[in-house]
Amino acid sequence: MSKIIDGKTVAAKVLDECSQEIETLKNRGITPGLAVVLVGDDPASKVYVGSKVRKCAELGLHSRKIELPADASQEEVLAVVEELNEDAAIHGILVQSPPPPHIDEEAIVRAIDPAKDVDGFHPENVAKLALEDASGFVPCTPAGCMRLLKEAGVETSGAQAVVIGRSMIVGKPMALLLMSKEGNATVTVAHSRTKDLAEVSRRADIIVAAIGRPEFVTADMVKDGATVIDVGINRVEDASAKRGYRLVGDVAYDEVAPKCAAITPVPGGVGPMTIAMLIANTVKAARQSVS
Amino acid sequence: MSKIIDGKTVAAKVLDECSQEIETLKNRGITPGLAVVLVGDDPASKVYVGSKVRKCAELGLHSRKIELPADASQEEVLAVVEELNEDAAIHGILVQSPPPPHIDEEAIVRAIDPAKDVDGFHPENVAKLALEDASGFVPCTPAGCMRLLKEAGVETSGAQAVVIGRSMIVGKPMALLLMSKEGNATVTVAHSRTKDLAEVSRRADIIVAAIGRPEFVTADMVKDGATVIDVGINRVEDASAKRGYRLVGDVAYDEVAPKCAAITPVPGGVGPMTIAMLIANTVKAARQSVS
Repeated sequence: MSKIIDGKTVAAKVLDECSQEIETLKNRGITPGLAVVLVGDDPASKVYVGSKVRKCAELGLHSRKIELPADASQEEVLAVVEELNEDAAIHGILVQSPPPPHIDEEAIVRAIDPAKDVDGFHPENVAKLALEDASGFVPCTPAGCMRLLKEAGVETSGAQAVVIGRSMIVGKPMALLLMSKEGNATVTVAHSRTKDLAEVSRRADIIVAAIGRPEFVTADMVKDGATVIDVGINRVEDASAKRGYRLVGDVAYDEVAPKCAAITPVPGGVGPMTIAMLIANTVKAARQSVS
Repeated sequence: MSKIIDGKTVAAKVLDECSQEIETLKNRGITPGLAVVLVGDDPASKVYVGSKVRKCAELGLHSRKIELPADASQEEVLAVVEELNEDAAIHGILVQSPPPPHIDEEAIVRAIDPAKDVDGFHPENVAKLALEDASGFVPCTPAGCMRLLKEAGVETSGAQAVVIGRSMIVGKPMALLLMSKEGNATVTVAHSRTKDLAEVSRRADIIVAAIGRPEFVTADMVKDGATVIDVGINRVEDASAKRGYRLVGDVAYDEVAPKCAAITPVPGGVGPMTIAMLIANTVKAARQSVS
């Protein structure tokens, strides 16, 4: 029987730790503040932004939602970011991705004060991750995956880990975390050009699937007793489902789970961790702003 | 029979390309300039700095050697760096490593204008490497290794590559280059905590050894027909040698070479590439300064 790694429980634990630290900071006169910038009216982005702001409210964080129209110019978005950089009540800034196509997202990310870049996408934080400088902000999803492994009691040191996917949002930072002096895993990064992917992933004690392809990781790709972290969230058409679709991960859960020592479900695995780590990064930013 | 990858020949080719570009730049009124800062009088560092400056002279590059006493303060070194940042005749700045222990090397590296950071160690260039932004400077040794693979006709795309060592000077940048959209290799980073290293490295089509341990990679760790890039340069005592020591790599060359499709010797493999890539980075910096 495989152990199901319950992301909701771990996320609750992270948020509980955050609550305590928020309390401590408030006693020092600091309320951690998160600003979320939404450009345009993509429905999914609206949902994400809404749940981030709601979570802040629940935890007593200060939050600000800035909504710009879909035709906002690059300069307008930059002006908002610069204002937030200067705002002492705001410790974390997040510009919801993806912005409309006429916006240069990379330039926006670079404009965010690295000390407020709670998404961890600013080049300065990318470098800090590679350089193992703990003052940086680690992108929320891979940070959440590391925490799930830890809470599930999975030893990364000396383990063979295979990360499937090489994006800067998940794959590469995940690999850097796992291979760091803290992770100490032997890390392989596999991707679309990998030959014999099944053979590569079958070596893994730990698989992190982050390719964005529904149910891509099948049972033949997983060693008995491996731990599987499924980062994917894919919509798959399903006429029998109420909404006409269901959410599946990058892992074929039903066939893979029975082989695993531990596995994250979708939904309810990595998903809840992402917001929790965003809050944790915001609290960290607030703490670092006064130390 | 294994093919010996001749670093001297490839380095000469790189420098020949540089010469042509230097010519073109000079015709536009720009002479690429490299400044090398040496703090203290470490004999090995003196030798390295000397050969860098000499190579510049050979190629018609402008170069400047700044020597500071071993007791120079952090502020004095920073003042030199800042002056060079402002100097339009200087396109590349290198502070020879390691400086004396009282100097904060990381702060010095951060003070270098990223556009002149031809060593590729500034966080901005570290991030550009991870983000696959070609305008950045790639550290000279891993850049040299990639070029050796290319010139030896070794296909990295789809290959299994194992990098042994996870330093920011060689291991991690090498892994990032190999896993990039250009390298497309399936990359495993192994290190001191890796279990069954022999088994891991035996999977490799390409091994990059960068651990700094003499003759660490033995025949049992190498698959027949693999390509081996040996980054190590270690002094080993040898009473029979004129100088009392000999130079060996991280690979036990005599036993490994017969198994390989291709291998770099030590010396004469990766070593000559490092200076060549430094010159190439300086020429690139000069080119980018006017484009």
